[in-house]
Amino acid sequence: MPQRMLFGPGPSDVAPSVLEAMARPVVGHLDPAFVGLLDEIGSMLRTVFRTANPVTFAVSGTGSAGMEMALVNLLEPGDRAVIGVAGVFGERLAEIARRCGAQADTVSVEWGRAVDPQQIADALASGGPAKLVAIVHAETSTGVRQPVEEIARIAHEAGALVVVDAVTSLAGIEVDVDRWGIDVCYSGTQKCLSVPPGLGPITFSPRAMDAIGARTTPVHSWYLDVGLITKYWGAERVYHHTAPISMLYALHEGLRLVLDEGLEQRWDRHETLGAELHARLTAMGFELLAAEGFRLPQLTTAALPGGADEKGLRGRLLDEHGIEVGGGLGAFAGRAWRIGLMGESCLPAKLDRLTSAIGSVLGSA
Amino acid sequence: MPQRMLFGPGPSDVAPSVLEAMARPVVGHLDPAFVGLLDEIGSMLRTVFRTANPVTFAVSGTGSAGMEMALVNLLEPGDRAVIGVAGVFGERLAEIARRCGAQADTVSVEWGRAVDPQQIADALASGGPAKLVAIVHAETSTGVRQPVEEIARIAHEAGALVVVDAVTSLAGIEVDVDRWGIDVCYSGTQKCLSVPPGLGPITFSPRAMDAIGARTTPVHSWYLDVGLITKYWGAERVYHHTAPISMLYALHEGLRLVLDEGLEQRWDRHETLGAELHARLTAMGFELLAAEGFRLPQLTTAALPGGADEKGLRGRLLDEHGIEVGGGLGAFAGRAWRIGLMGESCLPAKLDRLTSAIGSVLGSA
Repeated sequence: MPQRMLFGPGPSDVAPSVLEAMARPVVGHLDPAFVGLLDEIGSMLRTVFRTANPVTFAVSGTGSAGMEMALVNLLEPGDRAVIGVAGVFGERLAEIARRCGAQADTVSVEWGRAVDPQQIADALASGGPAKLVAIVHAETSTGVRQPVEEIARIAHEAGALVVVDAVTSLAGIEVDVDRWGIDVCYSGTQKCLSVPPGLGPITFSPRAMDAIGARTTPVHSWYLDVGLITKYWGAERVYHHTAPISMLYALHEGLRLVLDEGLEQRWDRHETLGAELHARLTAMGFELLAAEGFRLPQLTTAALPGGADEKGLRGRLLDEHGIEVGGGLGAFAGRAWRIGLMGESCLPAKLDRLTSAIGSVLGSA
Repeated sequence: MPQRMLFGPGPSDVAPSVLEAMARPVVGHLDPAFVGLLDEIGSMLRTVFRTANPVTFAVSGTGSAGMEMALVNLLEPGDRAVIGVAGVFGERLAEIARRCGAQADTVSVEWGRAVDPQQIADALASGGPAKLVAIVHAETSTGVRQPVEEIARIAHEAGALVVVDAVTSLAGIEVDVDRWGIDVCYSGTQKCLSVPPGLGPITFSPRAMDAIGARTTPVHSWYLDVGLITKYWGAERVYHHTAPISMLYALHEGLRLVLDEGLEQRWDRHETLGAELHARLTAMGFELLAAEGFRLPQLTTAALPGGADEKGLRGRLLDEHGIEVGGGLGAFAGRAWRIGLMGESCLPAKLDRLTSAIGSVLGSA
């Protein structure tokens, strides 16, 4: 495999010590040494999610499995879900909710904008009680930060549970599960945690677990049934499926690095370098597509100057500089890039390499 | 993590080159270099499954996710499934089928025995047409090899599709998807493939894909929807979820080692050493619990001699010898071990270490 610098929407660069952890000898998933490591992962995830939730672990699948796990456990056929849709990942939430047999009422906004909390309040005020409100915190398709804290407050006032997708936000910008009142929050390993893709950190509040306990129908999915999985991650250690040992080694080391740096220091690093990237892109003639005031530092959508050929230049960045950026999706396809500055990719020297390479391919276009 | 020798029901020992592959630098999941590797994995999996099925790939989850993927795509609410149950994993098939909304009619046998194909024929002859017959090839809870080939023939005569769990059999004993007429076959990486746990190799026949195309309701699961996933693994490369890059590096290297050895040579190796293990265990006073003629070489269930304390001795094997074996499940709990001789763990020198250690803890018990 070639050596790349990863500035796409994920995966991000992985620290050498995390790669080394993946190569450790495999032990059994019920080995006393391994279950101790599971406990430490649970504890570190609680710190990173800022929660005291006992039910905090990593799904044996990617962040998308985390999304499905959140919804498939909470929603029963006929339940109503109000879902904020501001891009691809909000649409995915609605699609999964429908497959759970729920009525998915979407609150949509134009690409590049954030959902207005008042729209959520309006949706909750009409159309019958909602079991939950779901929203993507950092919408990876648009680069927009959504007002999760206000939406959570409004949802709780209406008696709904709150599901938040923190795939691209966790460990990059503030995520505060308990203070914000999030009931289920899930993430992926390959964004700001800078661990290879393959696991979905997730946390369920006691209120969410009570709602799941009150279900009158079985959870559609056996693989993602949180009631079964917590018997393995909890004190009972009941076999459910064979845990992905090596990926969990990597997550353990990745979380250690995050906590070693400090969460707030890590947020600051993303904030500072993201702002610098925005300034440099603007100076080079890019147009930032996320609404001002809602721009994510770790994921930037930017239209290329002068209608430049995004695909061709993106290919040149990869081939000539070993640098990956992502192409635009949906409304931004064909004219914009998605540039990630996440975790190990979000370092001053790497940012310099990135913007210098962009300048070089633009200059000779 | 301590260094173990893994003789449990999985994970098995992992070859050094596979561990090294996990530590390779991560690239993007749409990187041209990476999608070439996906094509090679698909091709090698077709060789190992002995199939020409275009739809052959690895699920981004463990073997249990493969099981769920097989059933959730094929079964619609109200469909009838006939399921052979000869242990824990047959029961799991039935449980997942029920969660798909299907009528799961089970054909059960005593622990340690194989399902009689005539029982399946009888179940198919009564109770209305069945959409599929599902069976576990190598039942990891009992060590029994089930007569998949005959059952597949009977199922097809009745117009049913055939789903086979090859989690513990693939690359350890013969699995011949096309010749046996299997429609969906899935496995796990951590058994006879000797890759760390975390992926589920799977293959769908054109007939299975036609049945899925004829569904009148959406697949319950978005994460495991084969119609969406094949757009990424196929020529279109449409983003579905971020592929677990590092685990796929490992699978690629693990498959290369399997094909380098040769499938039939690998089956022979398991057959020979499994028989040797059975002889040595019997000589030490163990009672083999799988019915004669149906014993798996790669997974052996054996009751300890003289009612010895299985848990205590199992702990001593781990603590004093760094050797993992598994405890009995279900009807065999508390009195038997499950001993895996799979992939990289199935080598003459390792077998000697294993039986010598067993002799040592038994002798001083």
